[in-house]
Amino acid sequence: MPSHDEIVSVIHAYVQAFEDEDPKAAAALFAADAEVEDPVGSPARVGAKVIGEFYADVIERRKPRLELQGPVRTTGHRAAFPMTSTMVGLKHGPMRIDIIDIFEFDEAGKIKSMKAYWGPENIQKL
Amino acid sequence: MPSHDEIVSVIHAYVQAFEDEDPKAAAALFAADAEVEDPVGSPARVGAKVIGEFYADVIERRKPRLELQGPVRTTGHRAAFPMTSTMVGLKHGPMRIDIIDIFEFDEAGKIKSMKAYWGPENIQKL
Repeated sequence: MPSHDEIVSVIHAYVQAFEDEDPKAAAALFAADAEVEDPVGSPARVGAKVIGEFYADVIERRKPRLELQGPVRTTGHRAAFPMTSTMVGLKHGPMRIDIIDIFEFDEAGKIKSMKAYWGPENIQKL
Repeated sequence: MPSHDEIVSVIHAYVQAFEDEDPKAAAALFAADAEVEDPVGSPARVGAKVIGEFYADVIERRKPRLELQGPVRTTGHRAAFPMTSTMVGLKHGPMRIDIIDIFEFDEAGKIKSMKAYWGPENIQKL
């Protein structure tokens, strides 16, 4: 099971992948059979191929920049962290979303589940 | 389904119940068949009676003061929020825990599920 520090390292790598506009680096952090539910309540995206396409699309079109807004909370192989996502690639000007992500990790330290909590009330135009 | 503003009001009432050291006020926010998993990974506490006893014990022994650390994120009937819990009732001096709570609400606006993300790495002695 990954340690707290290993989990925090993966989350920092995830943030960095957005900074670098490198969807392959983001997708590489996920297990082959991972599930992404973003936002929570929407249909899950399942498996490496679909998740790779999701991050390629999001990063290319919206160019989000992620910023942690406090410490990563971990309990066993699960993590929760608050952040902002500032999308600088939108046609109509930048927007920021307040998000809380929940990551669940497998034994190898890969993300096997990602759930993003945010909704319309968490979006602001900058 | 409760609105974003109604959900935020319940969360503010939850914080206030700790401030007031009023476990009955905290427990009254939960549905009769609610589940509390605090921290995530521990056995769930199920039902109004058990949840009432849980909050009575926590508030009496630890006197936690909760403080939101950023906006409440909502998606449909679910909410996620970052906070600190500063326990001022401990024998060996105050401690603070960084926590992220996930609340799920029923149609009536009662909390039907609470999951608290925190672990040993999120605790600091003050």
